[in-house]
Amino acid sequence: MHPFVLALDLIGTFAFAISGATLGVRKRLDLFGVLVLSFAAAVSGGIGRDVLIGATPPAALATWHYIVVSCAAGLATFYRHGDIERLRNPVQLFDAVGLGLFAVTGAAKALAAGLNPLAAMLLGMLTGIGGGIARDVLAARIPVVLQSDLYAVAALAGAAVVVGGERLGLPLAPVLGTGAVLVFVLRFLAIRRGWRLPVAPGSEG
Amino acid sequence: MHPFVLALDLIGTFAFAISGATLGVRKRLDLFGVLVLSFAAAVSGGIGRDVLIGATPPAALATWHYIVVSCAAGLATFYRHGDIERLRNPVQLFDAVGLGLFAVTGAAKALAAGLNPLAAMLLGMLTGIGGGIARDVLAARIPVVLQSDLYAVAALAGAAVVVGGERLGLPLAPVLGTGAVLVFVLRFLAIRRGWRLPVAPGSEG
Amino acid sequence: MHPFVLALDLIGTFAFAISGATLGVRKRLDLFGVLVLSFAAAVSGGIGRDVLIGATPPAALATWHYIVVSCAAGLATFYRHGDIERLRNPVQLFDAVGLGLFAVTGAAKALAAGLNPLAAMLLGMLTGIGGGIARDVLAARIPVVLQSDLYAVAALAGAAVVVGGERLGLPLAPVLGTGAVLVFVLRFLAIRRGWRLPVAPGSEG
Repeated sequence: MHPFVLALDLIGTFAFAISGATLGVRKRLDLFGVLVLSFAAAVSGGIGRDVLIGATPPAALATWHYIVVSCAAGLATFYRHGDIERLRNPVQLFDAVGLGLFAVTGAAKALAAGLNPLAAMLLGMLTGIGGGIARDVLAARIPVVLQSDLYAVAALAGAAVVVGGERLGLPLAPVLGTGAVLVFVLRFLAIRRGWRLPVAPGSEG
Repeated sequence: MHPFVLALDLIGTFAFAISGATLGVRKRLDLFGVLVLSFAAAVSGGIGRDVLIGATPPAALATWHYIVVSCAAGLATFYRHGDIERLRNPVQLFDAVGLGLFAVTGAAKALAAGLNPLAAMLLGMLTGIGGGIARDVLAARIPVVLQSDLYAVAALAGAAVVVGGERLGLPLAPVLGTGAVLVFVLRFLAIRRGWRLPVAPGSEG
Repeated sequence: MHPFVLALDLIGTFAFAISGATLGVRKRLDLFGVLVLSFAAAVSGGIGRDVLIGATPPAALATWHYIVVSCAAGLATFYRHGDIERLRNPVQLFDAVGLGLFAVTGAAKALAAGLNPLAAMLLGMLTGIGGGIARDVLAARIPVVLQSDLYAVAALAGAAVVVGGERLGLPLAPVLGTGAVLVFVLRFLAIRRGWRLPVAPGSEG
């Protein structure tokens, strides 16, 4: 894997692990439960992608990086969660960072594995939202991704940037950066301005 | 894949996607959440089967058909759910159609992949019930399949027809049709007549 | 697979299936739902491990053993759950047995598949806790593993014994037995004496 992609992937792992650990602390899980939720939130999307493209064992298990990074994030959150909670909406913020990074690296890996553009976009989106879905399913709540402001759409947009950039032959690093920033900005604006997709007409209370 | 099997598979995809979208609308998810739930309900069983038989990337990602069909079903349900809700128990009805179609095509695919008859029956059943389980887990409720009238049993019966027909050397299309109709009839009668499997003696309130 | 490992694996399957069936009976699922929950609790960890190491179709589907054993356990629990409920905390007890057996056989299989020691420890732990997680997710509750006394830690300790024993070149059978007993004793003492890992400082009510 390209070192730049690996670096982004590990930063995304750290961010998602914090979102998992924060939820675990809020649910008052014990230390190991918090670490498991960190790991699940951090690597489920990437593991799902690797299993679906037949790349076993998944990168998250084949190297030390992902487990060490997600455990470090989990420990930091466990012992310093007071600081993290004082930040405004920390789960959503870190979640947005991880979402963008995972969506673009996931799409890039799927393209490198030879998948077609549509499948690469979907796998990028799934890499981005898979960890959050696993985190929320383990916490027995409906995944945020299914209800929240422009969540999966933002991930899909970032993955589309990567697929489009590859089709145009643009250099990888700036394309990945652009896609990840696009996802983060979309999520940030959606949260700040309350942008939402519509719910079905007539289903509102 | 045999064109007849593909056609049945896409009809089942449409039916399951509607069941997922209907639940998503009821839970008041936004448009993209409804599409994600459509897709999850439609393809999770088939993706699970493909991953378990080592056929990666799964058919649902390798071609355009499944994503287009499940998105179309999701959009139709999202904008016309009022019409669908007025039908009697639409979730159960569409669910029964998808259950039968997926159980028989799943068993046929598992046999074609060289699995033994027992494993093919199980994978047919799992193809049938996997989407409904994923749909319900994402909606944070106990899967209908674990509680409902003759649900997994019906899928297993349909898969058994396919396995039996293959052992007897019967032509594929009528065997698949018979199996799918059997599942649908079993589910329909179970719902209409309240047929249920027993709960454990002494566990009733 | 080594016959001793297979035998332990089937005993663990039986124990986990009982824990799944017991939860199913308590949730008043019907007969087939109880069997599905038995099967899910019994084989999800092993199937997850096999999918992650690329060993498809998973052992749980490739042979008759696992399905027959988990169905037998499910039927016994369904019809004799009164006897089982009268035992003290039967779910936790059987769960501890299965946890130990699966953790050590899972680590052994991962090592045999050529994974590195850290990944083998993690896969041993995941083999041990995967079934319980699947069982609890299907029952729409936060997995016990994330909240309970020394749960995943115990599985990890057992897997570490296997990995350490393999590094030292010790014979397999006593190493597996030692690891499984260690897990069971850790869980038993944790339950009896209320040993718990800490929750995050300041998160307590």
